Amino acid sequence: MLVKESIYRTIWYDDNKRIKIIDQTYLPFKFRIRELDSLEAAAEAISYMRVRGAPLIGVTAAFGIYLATIENSSIEYIKKAGKKLIATRPTAINLKWAVDKVVNKLIHSDEKNRKSVALVFASNLAKKDIEVNRKIGKYGSKLIEEIYKSKKDTVNILTHCNAGWLATVDWGTATAPIYTARDKGIPLHVWVDETRPRNQGSFLTSWELKNEKIRHTIIVDNAGGHLMQNNLVDIVITGSDRTTYTGDVCNKVGTYLKALAAKDNNVPFYVALPSSTIDWNTSKGTDIVIEERNNDEIHYMTGKNVKNKIDKFRVTPLETKAANYAFDVTPRKFVSGLITEFGVLKPNKSDILKAKRTLND
Amino acid sequence: MLVKESIYRTIWYDDNKRIKIIDQTYLPFKFRIRELDSLEAAAEAISYMRVRGAPLIGVTAAFGIYLATIENSSIEYIKKAGKKLIATRPTAINLKWAVDKVVNKLIHSDEKNRKSVALVFASNLAKKDIEVNRKIGKYGSKLIEEIYKSKKDTVNILTHCNAGWLATVDWGTATAPIYTARDKGIPLHVWVDETRPRNQGSFLTSWELKNEKIRHTIIVDNAGGHLMQNNLVDIVITGSDRTTYTGDVCNKVGTYLKALAAKDNNVPFYVALPSSTIDWNTSKGTDIVIEERNNDEIHYMTGKNVKNKIDKFRVTPLETKAANYAFDVTPRKFVSGLITEFGVLKPNKSDILKAKRTLND
Repeated sequence: MLVKESIYRTIWYDDNKRIKIIDQTYLPFKFRIRELDSLEAAAEAISYMRVRGAPLIGVTAAFGIYLATIENSSIEYIKKAGKKLIATRPTAINLKWAVDKVVNKLIHSDEKNRKSVALVFASNLAKKDIEVNRKIGKYGSKLIEEIYKSKKDTVNILTHCNAGWLATVDWGTATAPIYTARDKGIPLHVWVDETRPRNQGSFLTSWELKNEKIRHTIIVDNAGGHLMQNNLVDIVITGSDRTTYTGDVCNKVGTYLKALAAKDNNVPFYVALPSSTIDWNTSKGTDIVIEERNNDEIHYMTGKNVKNKIDKFRVTPLETKAANYAFDVTPRKFVSGLITEFGVLKPNKSDILKAKRTLND
Repeated sequence: MLVKESIYRTIWYDDNKRIKIIDQTYLPFKFRIRELDSLEAAAEAISYMRVRGAPLIGVTAAFGIYLATIENSSIEYIKKAGKKLIATRPTAINLKWAVDKVVNKLIHSDEKNRKSVALVFASNLAKKDIEVNRKIGKYGSKLIEEIYKSKKDTVNILTHCNAGWLATVDWGTATAPIYTARDKGIPLHVWVDETRPRNQGSFLTSWELKNEKIRHTIIVDNAGGHLMQNNLVDIVITGSDRTTYTGDVCNKVGTYLKALAAKDNNVPFYVALPSSTIDWNTSKGTDIVIEERNNDEIHYMTGKNVKNKIDKFRVTPLETKAANYAFDVTPRKFVSGLITEFGVLKPNKSDILKAKRTLND
């Protein structure tokens, strides 16, 4: 998508055979490209959230395995590398999926081919992600189009966190329907949840939308309910870090609160996700162990000071305790539908398993 | 209540006949006392939120009228002063109530007595506020005590924004039951919502609780739903800026989202309020016009930089739009009860009107 009028992806293998990423920790204040030159650098980029978003960290981890094969192509080392990468973000189901898949492929490859097998796998995963998101955009934009046809006025979309192209290789999941609807000429306005503690909404989603010239307004996470009560939201679209095969959605903490408000005000609540984020082994969302991240994400915030310099600030009283649950679970009963590369699914076992059969065909 | 082991109130008439307030804009980073020496200073203190919280701004406005009578005791000036004070915070019903009441008293007083009539009114209002909150503490602490009796373990209370003693003259509304339960020896832990955009939870409530040595943990506004899903909250207690006589609650934006989560997880959701915040003219909460505050409250944040200096920081991309709705409405069906100076009322017209008759007796 566009950054200052030029086309970018979030991760790429460049002409000099280097793995490059957009370092998202500097956004929205600085646009910086970073090279991943080792397994260590890939793992650090994921755990430090230089790259984030379930689809993108899956792809980054796959490139991480490729980088590991350069360092040491023994199966022992590759397996250790896989474990290291999986441990960086425990909630992301497709990180584990991607790593398990490529490690398994490498186990069955000759040692001399492992480097190229890993690179091909990671590159294909990146391509596939773009294709999947394009399809999510196709199916999801129809929902927006239907609202526009009946409303005949700007469609107001609320989104939480960043399930934008920055969370994927390109297009995004929750934003793919937005970008696609915009391309169809539908007038749009997006309510962007700030998304504390890491402010991925105000830092990343608004930066994306600004670069793509889509009209949007930042709100605090507390405001969505009020907007929905006052008919200021036509549809909610979020992403998902992990979706059970029964339709429960584990996504950025606060998603559940927006789903409750949507239900109470008859606002359609959709979740956009690639099938790679479906957890085929968990039937109850509330069984998912929620990642607790470093409390400093609550105590400190990044911003620009009066001298226009990026700095870190303490925003809680010293010596006060904080707790930092990164995700929450939205039970299926609050979800209107799951926008996937197979179309819009009902959030229930039979529809999701039907899609799985398509996947395996 | 305690500040660094000494007893304070939020506003007082001191031995040198000066009106003093705790300037809450410096909290939690600095503890500063400020003098209100003019009508202008009182109005500025309310609109700039040096004092905030429905009960406290009512008392501050009454002292503001007293300060106006010193400047000019004509009815014309006093009426103008009243209008100026009411305009500072449109949602606060008891600000209007206090100002209308004292202005009416002054209209019926001899010009030479107006200064002392206004001072007596304001001082009595402050005293009455403390007494009312003490009663809210008495009734509300019984709810906590009942939970403790059945749970026989630490009671976890979640609160949003600051309806603490800093929002009143003393004791607080939502915190009065907490302080009273603590005084009864009940083991407590408080989940403190950060409360964006102004962070009154992390800045004020946690500062209060720390000074009063009550165990607490700051969470982002997004986290409450997850905590309730996981049985980590025994009761929610918030304040109210305005309550309709039918039981709808208008409070700091985000309150509604917590009420929805409480309902979905069978967590009791109580609202603590003095009867002065009841709006006897509005039957439907969603008819209340919600104050939209300056968007800079979203764009900028106050914190301590690495050099330990208090500074203001831009936390959104430049040139990005924000919307800042200050309150939301929690419909009565999500409210377990209203903790008032008359006892715990059911959120319905008949119970609230019964209390009104007591009030008028």
